[in-house]
Amino acid sequence: MSLIATPESMTFSAALPLQSGASIRDYSLSYETYGQLNADKSNAVLVCHALNASHHVAGVYAGQDKSEGWWDNMIGPGKPVDTDRFFVIGVNNLGSCFGSTGPMHINPDTGLVYGADFPVVTVEDWVTAQARLMDALGIAQLAAVMGGSLGGMQALSWTLQYPERVKHAVVVASAPNLNAENIAFNEVARRAIVTDPDFHAGHFYQHGVIPKRGLRIARMIGHITYLSDDVMNTKFGRQLRDAVTSNDTGYKYTTQDVEFQIESYLRHQGDKFSDYFDANTYLLITRALDYFDPARAFGGDLSAALARATCPFLLISFSTDWRFSPARSRELVKALLDNHRDVSYAEIDAPHGHDAFLLEDARYLGVVRSYFDNMAQRLNQEAA
Amino acid sequence: MSLIATPESMTFSAALPLQSGASIRDYSLSYETYGQLNADKSNAVLVCHALNASHHVAGVYAGQDKSEGWWDNMIGPGKPVDTDRFFVIGVNNLGSCFGSTGPMHINPDTGLVYGADFPVVTVEDWVTAQARLMDALGIAQLAAVMGGSLGGMQALSWTLQYPERVKHAVVVASAPNLNAENIAFNEVARRAIVTDPDFHAGHFYQHGVIPKRGLRIARMIGHITYLSDDVMNTKFGRQLRDAVTSNDTGYKYTTQDVEFQIESYLRHQGDKFSDYFDANTYLLITRALDYFDPARAFGGDLSAALARATCPFLLISFSTDWRFSPARSRELVKALLDNHRDVSYAEIDAPHGHDAFLLEDARYLGVVRSYFDNMAQRLNQEAA
Repeated sequence: MSLIATPESMTFSAALPLQSGASIRDYSLSYETYGQLNADKSNAVLVCHALNASHHVAGVYAGQDKSEGWWDNMIGPGKPVDTDRFFVIGVNNLGSCFGSTGPMHINPDTGLVYGADFPVVTVEDWVTAQARLMDALGIAQLAAVMGGSLGGMQALSWTLQYPERVKHAVVVASAPNLNAENIAFNEVARRAIVTDPDFHAGHFYQHGVIPKRGLRIARMIGHITYLSDDVMNTKFGRQLRDAVTSNDTGYKYTTQDVEFQIESYLRHQGDKFSDYFDANTYLLITRALDYFDPARAFGGDLSAALARATCPFLLISFSTDWRFSPARSRELVKALLDNHRDVSYAEIDAPHGHDAFLLEDARYLGVVRSYFDNMAQRLNQEAA
Repeated sequence: MSLIATPESMTFSAALPLQSGASIRDYSLSYETYGQLNADKSNAVLVCHALNASHHVAGVYAGQDKSEGWWDNMIGPGKPVDTDRFFVIGVNNLGSCFGSTGPMHINPDTGLVYGADFPVVTVEDWVTAQARLMDALGIAQLAAVMGGSLGGMQALSWTLQYPERVKHAVVVASAPNLNAENIAFNEVARRAIVTDPDFHAGHFYQHGVIPKRGLRIARMIGHITYLSDDVMNTKFGRQLRDAVTSNDTGYKYTTQDVEFQIESYLRHQGDKFSDYFDANTYLLITRALDYFDPARAFGGDLSAALARATCPFLLISFSTDWRFSPARSRELVKALLDNHRDVSYAEIDAPHGHDAFLLEDARYLGVVRSYFDNMAQRLNQEAA
């Protein structure tokens, strides 16, 4: 039986101070919960999302067959993160475009749509907002906080901002910060959006247009970096979309039309994305990625930065992920070991690149299942 | 003493049949030559250029101090390809924007600027046009044809189209074809150009505008792929351009302004490029890259495809080149060895990524120097 998900929303009137020095007030967070919070409120698992995801982590919406949550293979009844045992919470981050307060909403200070005036939000700010939501839900301590990619950065940040509130952290396909190449890809994507004439300096809503050209390019760039070279060659290789028979090569000889399957795929991904994703949100979320760097305040010393984290960690990386490579996860493992922390680390040999963290992979899901099984057993022992 | 380069041009009235089935007539090729053609015309070396280069391979233009050719560290008096011994020819390819006939010139059939109507040209077409230029210069056989990246594809194609006219081929940082990821990056760059409202379906010249936004994005994407992750981290890392002192992080907290040095660098590269490069040329040249695939007509069997090549080869790749990785050069080595060809192969441990083929590297330049020294000795022996 499928889990039926019900989105909820909570409004916070008190101003949330942000890392930038700005603050935001009268904001709402969309969230979903799955499973039951136990009597001593010790089985809560917070799931943090990455760039293009939301609070809709698991299950389907009633009457909407194809509305599976973005980590539905991971979370649900009997799944690796078993909602028969854990109370799982998904929350949409501030600045996103899936329900929580974001650039398309009204700025209470001006009565106008935020647009580009939405404050810059960081991973740390998101974690602070999530902690307030946990307060409101009466959850003092999380059995685990988990996330992949940018979500993994939030899980890591929880262990630094609220070490006493996290019993376990699960950080998948993540990194202690972005390297120059990651920032470079983000920047090209942002420039494509910002230089789209329909962007209107971020106030496109009032012009009744959407910078779709820029969003398409941004998504195409992103998509290339989510996949591995291997999987692209296997899935698409040099296949033509419509080979002609009028010559030996099958080429149409065109510079603007689709010739190769990979082009068709990327254009399709770009088109889909530009239909639903907000341009200002794209800027905000990629910037949150760029800015995350807990070692920065410690002169680049990651071990010193992670000294505050006290909980056990599960870290997972994927062999063909060149966006957040295994080497980046190993930096985290080393820094945690330097602090004598309890670290489990799995490097999964998977062909799918960064996308692997969202995909079905028996070894990957098996590791998470075992980790949460052990956690559930300890919870039962503690309760007994 | 610096070599003084003098650009020349040759016009060809006879129609050149192209691979696409189209043809082009009354076209000109810009070229330069360095050194002296010897009496038996046996010391000619043709240098083929890559995406963003021209016939101006070596030397400087009289009175223009900073006008070094793009391979000036490789070619000149006493350099690895020694113009005291070899007669070196650089030629700008058809469809380029540096002098040879291209999209910004008049189509003799219509009297209008070609724009997007410039015929699609392939690596094979460029080689055919280069062979005609060699005919006109009275050069029946080349001592060597050489090139890096897309230029290496042309050198390889010479050995397949005109095996009897090539005594040696030097193929640097190249590949037997583009893989899906390479095509994907080209496609995103093309989409950025084509969807720029100033592109006007490729006929922007008559609108008095240039699709600079698209060109900037295209160049930024290209630039990321020319550099290695390592060199980007070393050169830029997470350095801020103008760190503020008003907070701990130094961040300005901005989504649209430059924050990191890498962003500033990429924007600068994009701006420069958009000032001089033609948008239609960008489409044509990236398509020529996409289309090159000599194994295609042999059902993907590269060894069968290279059976026509008879000359000795020097192949060079660079360890951190992820655009045309060493693995791609090794495919060529294997296919040539399958055909019992004379192959020298050097895999240079260099940090610079694909760009390494244009840079100063003692081991790299040393290999090329030795290869050409041996060639010169054999030429002398044959002449004696």
